[in-house]
Amino acid sequence: MIKIIEEELRKYLNPDVKLILEVGNYIFDGGGKRIRPYLVLTFSKLFKGENEKRDFPLAVAMEYLHTASLLHDDVVDMADTRRGKPSANKVFGNDVVVLVGDYMYADALYLFSIYGDIDMIRNVSDAVKKMAEGQLLELKKIGDLDITEEEYFKILTGKTAALFASCCYVGAKLGEAEEKQLLSAYNYGLYLGLAFQIVDDILDYTADKNKVGKPVCNDIKEGKITYPLLSIMDKLTEEEFNLIKKVVRSINGVNEEDILKIKEIVIKYGGIEKSINKAKELINKALKELENFPENDYLKELKNLAKFVVEREF
Amino acid sequence: MIKIIEEELRKYLNPDVKLILEVGNYIFDGGGKRIRPYLVLTFSKLFKGENEKRDFPLAVAMEYLHTASLLHDDVVDMADTRRGKPSANKVFGNDVVVLVGDYMYADALYLFSIYGDIDMIRNVSDAVKKMAEGQLLELKKIGDLDITEEEYFKILTGKTAALFASCCYVGAKLGEAEEKQLLSAYNYGLYLGLAFQIVDDILDYTADKNKVGKPVCNDIKEGKITYPLLSIMDKLTEEEFNLIKKVVRSINGVNEEDILKIKEIVIKYGGIEKSINKAKELINKALKELENFPENDYLKELKNLAKFVVEREF
Repeated sequence: MIKIIEEELRKYLNPDVKLILEVGNYIFDGGGKRIRPYLVLTFSKLFKGENEKRDFPLAVAMEYLHTASLLHDDVVDMADTRRGKPSANKVFGNDVVVLVGDYMYADALYLFSIYGDIDMIRNVSDAVKKMAEGQLLELKKIGDLDITEEEYFKILTGKTAALFASCCYVGAKLGEAEEKQLLSAYNYGLYLGLAFQIVDDILDYTADKNKVGKPVCNDIKEGKITYPLLSIMDKLTEEEFNLIKKVVRSINGVNEEDILKIKEIVIKYGGIEKSINKAKELINKALKELENFPENDYLKELKNLAKFVVEREF
Repeated sequence: MIKIIEEELRKYLNPDVKLILEVGNYIFDGGGKRIRPYLVLTFSKLFKGENEKRDFPLAVAMEYLHTASLLHDDVVDMADTRRGKPSANKVFGNDVVVLVGDYMYADALYLFSIYGDIDMIRNVSDAVKKMAEGQLLELKKIGDLDITEEEYFKILTGKTAALFASCCYVGAKLGEAEEKQLLSAYNYGLYLGLAFQIVDDILDYTADKNKVGKPVCNDIKEGKITYPLLSIMDKLTEEEFNLIKKVVRSINGVNEEDILKIKEIVIKYGGIEKSINKAKELINKALKELENFPENDYLKELKNLAKFVVEREF
């Protein structure tokens, strides 16, 4: 199925505007798991046994939304690299990247206006709103030690979960699922996305730099307090608290020794285990949502996908 | 009516995310003619005599699309000022401005999914695509003396005309206009927008700096060839051509004397008259589209609006 997605990805970009195709191809060639189109297509098959022609442009549209958000994210973060190669804004410039992102957002909604329905558009545009809201909240909370669990989860929703949820909703809607099943599909995607992002946040603390392909402990260096640290904030001594405060509020680079100390503090108080448990709890919720669905091979795939999320290497 | 629009403008932004309201208010307080909501509301009234409740959120949605495009435009242009005050990206940063723009795009489409219909969404998302395409083409054509009239008009469509056209279409659709009238409404907006933008491009050559509130001959300084110059390109001597080439391709600032010389060249060969005639021609086309519509006070307003566009001071 991945092969079909790869082929379809280039199909709905305006070929007359070369910059759009160039930036699109640059991003698509950079890889990615295509998990969003996969969710759309699998949920659709779960209910109707196979994919119809109209499923594909909508699966692609969800990847366009994700791509648009990556493009804008690179501008927001002033990123130098993504997936080990120069980020699109470094290659094409902020101006081009912002506009191609805008094009992809609009193109995705346009595809929904052709192949989808107004109920899907409501769900999808709500997800895009949540994405922007979550990222704005993340910006605002940089260097803020008072971030609450509720705020953290709102950020995760914006980063990953809202769009995952919407993909599952769209797929189920394409499969003509019932109202209650649509809600369950949405919630499965939401819990899956939250767990996925927590695992990402754990990996930022634990992963091997060479394996992940990006610097580790990046979040804390950027002043972002994620679950491994958030979950043990109430256990910190004053000294430990002050160290963290110093690091998350430092603007011009941080001391690698301080970063190592924070990593040790997180491990000492069990921040990693707490995070793994939280991710597992969310995955169990995701699996529970699948109980209302027909038992077939596609359901098995969705179960396995959920389990896989918490079995990635920590 | 303007008062209602001003009140409604703040109503559909998420009040829980303070940055969205702050940036929104900053832009809305900066002024603007609100011509896009005006077009939606007037076309709706043209056909049904008055506005219904659902007209207002959609009129506002079109202003959100315009605002989102202004926000992203400031990032694209690395602008320092807009309408005489610091641009939003200078005040809030590129990161916030990109994300609030994304939020506004999504919020606009969301409002259409609640109060509009799928046909409107197709028209509107197509306009947003054209906006991004036009701006990308404009970027690509900077410093390019071979720009064609077709390309120039594609840029104008993206900058102004596509969204104007879509506003008229949405208004007419809200007024339950017939298929043929919808097309005429769209074309009226398109011609109006093209003329509007040509007049802007004329003013960039002719206006008094103190009156317009922005530097004059800005386009040529930025390497952009607009209609006043484009329309006389075939008349230039080699020396004049080379002067223009030098200016549009200079990266680090231009010589004010050279700019004055180009202005004189444009005037000498009649570039201003040609542009005024082109704008008038487009306005006549716009007025012709109005012939299929009911004769009432709103039609008079739309006629006057069109005439006003070419009667602005040159």
